[in-house]
Amino acid sequence: MNFSSDKHADTHADKHRGQRSLIESLSNPLVKRMRLLREKRHRKAEGLFLAEGLRIATEAREAGILPHWLFLSEDSMGHPLVQAMVDAVLRNGGEVIDTTPAVLSKLSGKDNPQTIVGIYPEPRPKLSDIDRTSAPIWLVAERLRDPGNLGTILRTGDAVGAGGLILLDESTDPYAVETVRASMGAIFTQQLVQARWDEFLPWLRQGEGQLVATWLGDDTVDYQAVSYQAPTFILIGNESQGMPADYAAAADVRVKMPMMGKADSLNAAVAAAVMAYEVLNQNRRTEA
Amino acid sequence: MNFSSDKHADTHADKHRGQRSLIESLSNPLVKRMRLLREKRHRKAEGLFLAEGLRIATEAREAGILPHWLFLSEDSMGHPLVQAMVDAVLRNGGEVIDTTPAVLSKLSGKDNPQTIVGIYPEPRPKLSDIDRTSAPIWLVAERLRDPGNLGTILRTGDAVGAGGLILLDESTDPYAVETVRASMGAIFTQQLVQARWDEFLPWLRQGEGQLVATWLGDDTVDYQAVSYQAPTFILIGNESQGMPADYAAAADVRVKMPMMGKADSLNAAVAAAVMAYEVLNQNRRTEA
Repeated sequence: MNFSSDKHADTHADKHRGQRSLIESLSNPLVKRMRLLREKRHRKAEGLFLAEGLRIATEAREAGILPHWLFLSEDSMGHPLVQAMVDAVLRNGGEVIDTTPAVLSKLSGKDNPQTIVGIYPEPRPKLSDIDRTSAPIWLVAERLRDPGNLGTILRTGDAVGAGGLILLDESTDPYAVETVRASMGAIFTQQLVQARWDEFLPWLRQGEGQLVATWLGDDTVDYQAVSYQAPTFILIGNESQGMPADYAAAADVRVKMPMMGKADSLNAAVAAAVMAYEVLNQNRRTEA
Repeated sequence: MNFSSDKHADTHADKHRGQRSLIESLSNPLVKRMRLLREKRHRKAEGLFLAEGLRIATEAREAGILPHWLFLSEDSMGHPLVQAMVDAVLRNGGEVIDTTPAVLSKLSGKDNPQTIVGIYPEPRPKLSDIDRTSAPIWLVAERLRDPGNLGTILRTGDAVGAGGLILLDESTDPYAVETVRASMGAIFTQQLVQARWDEFLPWLRQGEGQLVATWLGDDTVDYQAVSYQAPTFILIGNESQGMPADYAAAADVRVKMPMMGKADSLNAAVAAAVMAYEVLNQNRRTEA
């Protein structure tokens, strides 16, 4: 193994690809640079994001996605999945950095950090990259604000066999640490496209696809009274305001879940899940 | 109106009940005392918790629950629902405190605080206070850790017409600000009981009730293949570890949602919602 010292660790990774190095200093330039990825503007400028934990990294690896940099502490050593990660990263030309829990804590912003942290390229696919017939369900969310909701929706998308999530208009950044954490790895397995409504609707209408809006206004049907057609695009509105009326009007059908209590709406991630499981369940019955 | 000055505002509310006062100083003793309610040990010691916003306060009022103290800023004045709150609090012997956005910010811990903050007594009911036949669904969560998940589960409980939530063992404190916020008012409309498993199970078996565990292990049935019996108790396990095997073994039935992707589990609040809507939907079909 080739350990370079702190002093020589280079912030320009491309020169060090396929190498293994040692960083123990919190003020190391690469550490300083990578911890800035907790801020959206730095993620955008670098085209990189940070994911914590062996479980998520392994899910990414199984989906063929490897980090450019892999930071790991001594505590992680000896675990066969960590060794598999290290081998794969080095083989792929990435850099493996042995480091301390303090550095991992600085990178992730958590007091009790996971024993590994990976730095990944943001994929940023476009609508035109989506093969809509590749999955029976697609989730669509507009102006989603909460990183936890976004991660949870990705996780649910994975569970129901969705192809991905289309994020409309100004939503919270999907590559935030909290989102990646809440997605439990689905950030790597679900396609994630950001688009404006006026790009999305024409794209949708170019091919097959039923647009289903979860709508709190009038002119809705019970969500179980609809026969969903694949590919089904489930549209979820903003957490506090719901979606604009013209978005709902452009949908093929507007549905409502029964609300038996005082509240008039569900949490956005919950609404997405209840809807998506209904579509999945209908598809299961058709196949049976 | 009777405005007392900052200097005379008393931290012992009982003396000032049914009065209206003015507090502008961040170092006012009542403000200092109430902001400590953001910490669990102070909530426990005081038996009080804090809820922000007119919407939640109005939902509480409609459920017959009024704050002991109501803090409000000038921005809230003129709103008819605020006036209704003020009248109700004063009539109930509570104290209404006119204050500044800075004080509201200090109380709630938010940069952009809501224009009203209420301080409520924690109800802390026991299992023996529950009338299990009063609702067809009860949610049960064990060692829930995330305040947002807990609030979201309460909100879902309200939506599906559940009677309440039973929190088992060492769960996150349900009266945390984040939980109250995520519950969207359901903290006031759902019964919320904290109990140990070894209290819960004997209580459950004293009467009717089907215990349904969402279980990731073996020996499960598809969650749609079960005929649920009211009252249905839906048991959700800890976010990262699931529930102990003996809890699942004690359930009447162990169910699993279909998982079509890479992940093996759903977010806890999502699992609770998908299960609860299945039970609600079965009940709707029976009634139809």
